[in-house]
Amino acid sequence: MHEECGVFGAYGLASAAERAALALYALQHRGQEGCGIATYDEASASIHMVKNLGQVKEVFGPKDFLALPGDKAVGHVRYSTTGGNLPRNTQPMLAGTREGTLALVHNGNLSNAAALRRELEAKGLIFQTDSDTEVIAYLLAGELIRTKDIVAALQAAMTRMEGSYSLVMLLNGTMLAVRDPFGMRPLCMGEVEGSPVFASESCAIGAVRGRFVRDLKPGEIVRVEGKNVDSFFGGKPSAGALCIFEHIYFARPDSVIDGQSVYEARLRAGRILAESHPVKADLVIGVPDSGLIAAIGYAEGSGIPHGEGFVINRYIGRTFIEPTQEMRASKVRLKLSPLRRAVEGKRVVMVDDSLVRGTTMGPTVALLKKAGAAEVHVRICAPPFLYPCYFGTDVPSRELLASVRWSHEELTHRIGADSLGFLPLNRVHDLAPNSGLGFCDGCFSGKYPYEVAE
Amino acid sequence: MHEECGVFGAYGLASAAERAALALYALQHRGQEGCGIATYDEASASIHMVKNLGQVKEVFGPKDFLALPGDKAVGHVRYSTTGGNLPRNTQPMLAGTREGTLALVHNGNLSNAAALRRELEAKGLIFQTDSDTEVIAYLLAGELIRTKDIVAALQAAMTRMEGSYSLVMLLNGTMLAVRDPFGMRPLCMGEVEGSPVFASESCAIGAVRGRFVRDLKPGEIVRVEGKNVDSFFGGKPSAGALCIFEHIYFARPDSVIDGQSVYEARLRAGRILAESHPVKADLVIGVPDSGLIAAIGYAEGSGIPHGEGFVINRYIGRTFIEPTQEMRASKVRLKLSPLRRAVEGKRVVMVDDSLVRGTTMGPTVALLKKAGAAEVHVRICAPPFLYPCYFGTDVPSRELLASVRWSHEELTHRIGADSLGFLPLNRVHDLAPNSGLGFCDGCFSGKYPYEVAE
Amino acid sequence: MHEECGVFGAYGLASAAERAALALYALQHRGQEGCGIATYDEASASIHMVKNLGQVKEVFGPKDFLALPGDKAVGHVRYSTTGGNLPRNTQPMLAGTREGTLALVHNGNLSNAAALRRELEAKGLIFQTDSDTEVIAYLLAGELIRTKDIVAALQAAMTRMEGSYSLVMLLNGTMLAVRDPFGMRPLCMGEVEGSPVFASESCAIGAVRGRFVRDLKPGEIVRVEGKNVDSFFGGKPSAGALCIFEHIYFARPDSVIDGQSVYEARLRAGRILAESHPVKADLVIGVPDSGLIAAIGYAEGSGIPHGEGFVINRYIGRTFIEPTQEMRASKVRLKLSPLRRAVEGKRVVMVDDSLVRGTTMGPTVALLKKAGAAEVHVRICAPPFLYPCYFGTDVPSRELLASVRWSHEELTHRIGADSLGFLPLNRVHDLAPNSGLGFCDGCFSGKYPYEVAE
Amino acid sequence: MHEECGVFGAYGLASAAERAALALYALQHRGQEGCGIATYDEASASIHMVKNLGQVKEVFGPKDFLALPGDKAVGHVRYSTTGGNLPRNTQPMLAGTREGTLALVHNGNLSNAAALRRELEAKGLIFQTDSDTEVIAYLLAGELIRTKDIVAALQAAMTRMEGSYSLVMLLNGTMLAVRDPFGMRPLCMGEVEGSPVFASESCAIGAVRGRFVRDLKPGEIVRVEGKNVDSFFGGKPSAGALCIFEHIYFARPDSVIDGQSVYEARLRAGRILAESHPVKADLVIGVPDSGLIAAIGYAEGSGIPHGEGFVINRYIGRTFIEPTQEMRASKVRLKLSPLRRAVEGKRVVMVDDSLVRGTTMGPTVALLKKAGAAEVHVRICAPPFLYPCYFGTDVPSRELLASVRWSHEELTHRIGADSLGFLPLNRVHDLAPNSGLGFCDGCFSGKYPYEVAE
Repeated sequence: MHEECGVFGAYGLASAAERAALALYALQHRGQEGCGIATYDEASASIHMVKNLGQVKEVFGPKDFLALPGDKAVGHVRYSTTGGNLPRNTQPMLAGTREGTLALVHNGNLSNAAALRRELEAKGLIFQTDSDTEVIAYLLAGELIRTKDIVAALQAAMTRMEGSYSLVMLLNGTMLAVRDPFGMRPLCMGEVEGSPVFASESCAIGAVRGRFVRDLKPGEIVRVEGKNVDSFFGGKPSAGALCIFEHIYFARPDSVIDGQSVYEARLRAGRILAESHPVKADLVIGVPDSGLIAAIGYAEGSGIPHGEGFVINRYIGRTFIEPTQEMRASKVRLKLSPLRRAVEGKRVVMVDDSLVRGTTMGPTVALLKKAGAAEVHVRICAPPFLYPCYFGTDVPSRELLASVRWSHEELTHRIGADSLGFLPLNRVHDLAPNSGLGFCDGCFSGKYPYEVAE
Repeated sequence: MHEECGVFGAYGLASAAERAALALYALQHRGQEGCGIATYDEASASIHMVKNLGQVKEVFGPKDFLALPGDKAVGHVRYSTTGGNLPRNTQPMLAGTREGTLALVHNGNLSNAAALRRELEAKGLIFQTDSDTEVIAYLLAGELIRTKDIVAALQAAMTRMEGSYSLVMLLNGTMLAVRDPFGMRPLCMGEVEGSPVFASESCAIGAVRGRFVRDLKPGEIVRVEGKNVDSFFGGKPSAGALCIFEHIYFARPDSVIDGQSVYEARLRAGRILAESHPVKADLVIGVPDSGLIAAIGYAEGSGIPHGEGFVINRYIGRTFIEPTQEMRASKVRLKLSPLRRAVEGKRVVMVDDSLVRGTTMGPTVALLKKAGAAEVHVRICAPPFLYPCYFGTDVPSRELLASVRWSHEELTHRIGADSLGFLPLNRVHDLAPNSGLGFCDGCFSGKYPYEVAE
Repeated sequence: MHEECGVFGAYGLASAAERAALALYALQHRGQEGCGIATYDEASASIHMVKNLGQVKEVFGPKDFLALPGDKAVGHVRYSTTGGNLPRNTQPMLAGTREGTLALVHNGNLSNAAALRRELEAKGLIFQTDSDTEVIAYLLAGELIRTKDIVAALQAAMTRMEGSYSLVMLLNGTMLAVRDPFGMRPLCMGEVEGSPVFASESCAIGAVRGRFVRDLKPGEIVRVEGKNVDSFFGGKPSAGALCIFEHIYFARPDSVIDGQSVYEARLRAGRILAESHPVKADLVIGVPDSGLIAAIGYAEGSGIPHGEGFVINRYIGRTFIEPTQEMRASKVRLKLSPLRRAVEGKRVVMVDDSLVRGTTMGPTVALLKKAGAAEVHVRICAPPFLYPCYFGTDVPSRELLASVRWSHEELTHRIGADSLGFLPLNRVHDLAPNSGLGFCDGCFSGKYPYEVAE
Repeated sequence: MHEECGVFGAYGLASAAERAALALYALQHRGQEGCGIATYDEASASIHMVKNLGQVKEVFGPKDFLALPGDKAVGHVRYSTTGGNLPRNTQPMLAGTREGTLALVHNGNLSNAAALRRELEAKGLIFQTDSDTEVIAYLLAGELIRTKDIVAALQAAMTRMEGSYSLVMLLNGTMLAVRDPFGMRPLCMGEVEGSPVFASESCAIGAVRGRFVRDLKPGEIVRVEGKNVDSFFGGKPSAGALCIFEHIYFARPDSVIDGQSVYEARLRAGRILAESHPVKADLVIGVPDSGLIAAIGYAEGSGIPHGEGFVINRYIGRTFIEPTQEMRASKVRLKLSPLRRAVEGKRVVMVDDSLVRGTTMGPTVALLKKAGAAEVHVRICAPPFLYPCYFGTDVPSRELLASVRWSHEELTHRIGADSLGFLPLNRVHDLAPNSGLGFCDGCFSGKYPYEVAE
């Protein structure tokens, strides 16, 4: 389960490209398949860009920062769905428009992208990538013909765009940050040495020694031009529909989204599970890394002692070689190793973030059993996945979803657990009660914030 | 002095991508900074592409050919002018149009590219590269809205395009090859195992074991669709204006362009120089590699014996490290080493292809003198460079041209030669008398085939 | 703080090189600077080797396994001290002897290496590496002249070697595993599909789906030849002196060394600290990853709740670019991010494995304080470092050790902690009471298992 | 046909490592499979080394020169025979001896290496490489025990070494250059800015802006220590036996060996062929690059005009991908392209350096015939290969040699030539009449300068 992308922007900041790289390190959990930075440099009044497939540590070297002058930068980390892992789909995207070159980064997914694309192609426009972002760039460029005002152009484009989008962009030394009218993906604003910065998550602001200022509101457009920071709105107002999976899995636990700590949301998930799915047990453990905090919550809620159950091997690369079937089977074992002395003879509650296809849960439970666990009770910080996501969460097609394929009993049996408990659907919104905004839980409930055509 | 690019296309040929790679090896002299191949595969009805900065041997490995299925391919080698050496400018260019994805390769330069680009941007179109090729793609995509017929669309677009262009493209399993109405850049057609192929130079057809069929005529559009190969024309008819520098320097001597052997053109350059700039001497040598054949022509024309004068070091890479000024000065010496025993005590005629800035000619003459040459008479297979080129030849700006900066005597003195002779301007067209077409010699004469707006 | 190396051997196992790679993944925490595998292949009766600087995931690709045929393999991961990070110091080491080519891997350090080296050089021997391993190879090769029996040769060589060594080697299809007479470094034996394997830690045996059989005894030599597995002894018998730092830091918590679980040793360290350095506090956290288990022990011992205090960023590479001082300071912040909501307003006990120079402890405490921790009480799972190690633990020179430079009060103040507690020296051996063997705690106590000349 | 290696040394020269790299560029034709440089730096009194598989342009980057301080350097380019292309066989070789670390580079081959190796192994010495050089290092280290005088040690070692060796080495700031008693491989001395340099060929001295001083005499040892350059001799005096293939193929034509220009030797080869194997023809061409000068000699000797017959493609890499049989066949065609207009309808004399297995000569002749040559007369600058070489020339085993397998008529027929002429064996020594030394032509005559035990 992955999401697509993290974004960052810095305006008027010395060493802007290097700061962007630091911020992208902190956002790397949102996408590891590609990354890029574009800067605008007043002296040459031009955009510079370095982007490629790979992680920040692989893409950026000292020479690259020399090639990225200027005090304004946008940056991007990318997760791509299968098949689209191509250099031309990495971001930032550059778009030469009549008003100048636009450098654009985007996190999210338009549910009407295909329709918009067909419509734009019918006007003679050409598409050089497979991404939604190019659709957004075209809508903007088209509106910029009608109005030279980028904010007006954005507002017009937003009436056409359906779905999730957190954008940061540079145009001729003006920076714009935009969050879609439902606020489906996070986007916040901070301040570093007096300069505004924007990031998908607040943890990236900390990484550049910045101070968190506030989240963008659903539908908000922030324009930074010289010393002026102005706020506008676009699209239809909504009660908000943040992807709840940001709290459960995507976001880093030290981030705060819409006033709600991700750390606390995960503790709460554990406590709700302890309440809704209690069990007699000797030990609560989390599956590293995303189940660890919820496990503490479960321990608190249940009074069962909390401990470490696994050693995780940090050295397994994406380039791990799997020459034979025999070797392939070893990958789970290599990545995750049970602590026999911790679990032997014990009734263990094992907390994990989600259960999607059910392919790795079985081997994980088996590791504990083989290490001597007397019982293994699986608790999942999310309800069962039953429906597609149109907004950027990479949910597999329905026929691959464990909770679609099997009954609760079958699934419990398949994964070899002694019991299996999901977060109740009606408690999902309790994970983050302090945000003052609503959530999208469409992948669990089948109810989306608007009627999705297609 | 470099030109921009070489192109190739193969239609209905097994292992099309591998053949394209072989052809690009043979065209590599036309551009070493980037290359790429796109294939169209009927099974998936989709385009696949691999391209990157670097030479063919660096960009393509065995895995890449697996990623390039299909029996139709276009390929490109790229030379880029300073500053534009960026991944996003490599080709093929993909353009998603209403009629399908276009894969396009281009050799040449539009003299009205900037004006067209401004016009297209004013319609809300966005530009993601710096290249003329994107302008061509937009013109085509625009025309494809008005007519679904790609040939009609090309003919319409050609009325807008001014300058040089040899194009090969794939659209939904149809291949098109186009040569601009002046035939400024070469483009020919061959046949491999019954399948049509297209290439910038005939040497590439030989490299894939093909048979040369014919050159495309100025303004010709060849369309290949299934078993049908049809010819059309676009743009205003002309008497032809092939860049004469193709014969002097760009093309490989085993190529034949418009019925005229490049090898013979170079021999002829040497003979004309022997006639127009005779001198008493003991030995004629060529500067490797492009002066070698003309030296033979000079020897034949003058009766002076011909020999080898230099050893060329093939192992110096682009990545040659030049940490200090002292080291930098060594690069000419490393690349070119005089054969002392061949030149010692002799009056030497040294034939080279052209003299642009005059920066390497001096050190080269000095090598011969230091090796004991009694006299060094420099003969140049081209007239003095005096004017800009708008059609893809990378002529430096006027103030850097040796023949603009210095008088003939000053220049002779600066390079340390005992005499210096250029090919007479009025003999330029005699280099290739058998083509039946005219030539462009604008960089020497200031006279271009049409009035270039700028 | 690092140790030098991990070793592995597999005898008579299909895909021996691939198994070795899996095992090296599991041992990678013992050394990330270089790795290698050598195999012996009966068909050609020869040794094959691939080794290089880098981690397993960087050094080994599919082609390498084709180049490593045979069912017998030895493997090595290397940590190198400053200055010695050179390709020629990677292992396995090959040594052509009169009896055949020896492939040797080694974990440990000879305290009399320099003296032995001088002695061997005086006999006309040449050294091609900087490592102790070459000394061992020479001693062995020399003894093999006197006796063709490799076990007798090993026993003779062991009388000369002082210090720590766990060895695995191949000679003409015979495998030998050796642990030094004090058992200073771990070495154990397992069984995979009926074939014997050897590894520095038991976690590597699990990684190849093996079954742990037993630890080698101090001074033990195990010889595997065809179906025979025989045990011999060399050197003077001892009560054992395993490096206690294996339990505190080096070994993986899922390993069991000499019958003592590393996981339990760390829990015990936490409990002893709770007992010896109690404090009133609201939360116990561990510094990831090596302080996490001890933190649970402290929580159990003290009754103070346990939680997560930090998010660790797994994406920071060794190649992290630090162009400016400003950026450098960010590295701790990038790697470790405090969970403000967990620590805000709380009195926090922070447990870490050791305190060596004291350079990162200060910034780590500062992160918690800046995140709002009311108090930070640092607890260290080891006594103060005061003395050098001669046996392979990379203890810095005395003048760099925090506990040498500063008094307890000064140090507490420098790191900004509200209190600081070390594991009491007299409790060190209580960490692992079940091993039935003694420990070396020379770096804390200055008392070594034998009198070290030098 | 390849030889093993080129060597270089510089003593007391600023930027010694960079100079060595420049010299290795000029020696790269002697070996492209690996290279390395070691420097000695007085300040640290230690040796630094960078070496790896690959060409100079691949192995050395700016960082490497920073890692190679000091004003004394030795360098090496390596050609390796099949199977030995391993990192551990690259040079310089470092050998820690009682007198200090020796850095050694070697061109040549000991005919008694295997016997010496067995003898040394029987003394308990270990071999870490497959190369003769390690045998030399051991002999030297052994002698250095008996005498601390490196020259005396060398003289003693030379009485044991049979075969070819040109050595340069550094020991504690003393440089030694040694040429074997037969002078089988070239080695010369030059001077750069007052500092002595040594190189396999004089062309490398020119590459570092040096002045050629003299060749080392057979058996000569030159020692450089501070300002003193002293000459000694070792081994039995001989009349000299330089490998004649140095003149025919290995050496660069701008080099002068033992007073004899390689360029002139090749001209002479062509003239002798014109005399011994005359033919009626219209054109003489050389196979690039090593046949080009001999072709001029043949033209001079015969009066037949000389011309260019082929275009050579410089862009084909070692990494050329040959996925199918069809592609493989294209490699000759890709590398060498005939100039149809030059050869069409003509009787062509094609001069090449040697004919070993006869596998590429056939396709090359076929290219000319297919391009329209009326007749192709092949002339070879060497006699037929009939015997093994024990001194470093990589002659295949007898059963693979074309002149062993087939009669002259069969061979002529197989390669498709109209006639075939080899350099007469009795004229071989006439190639280089001015050296004042004898030659080894054992691979042609079966007569070696001494009786080779095997």
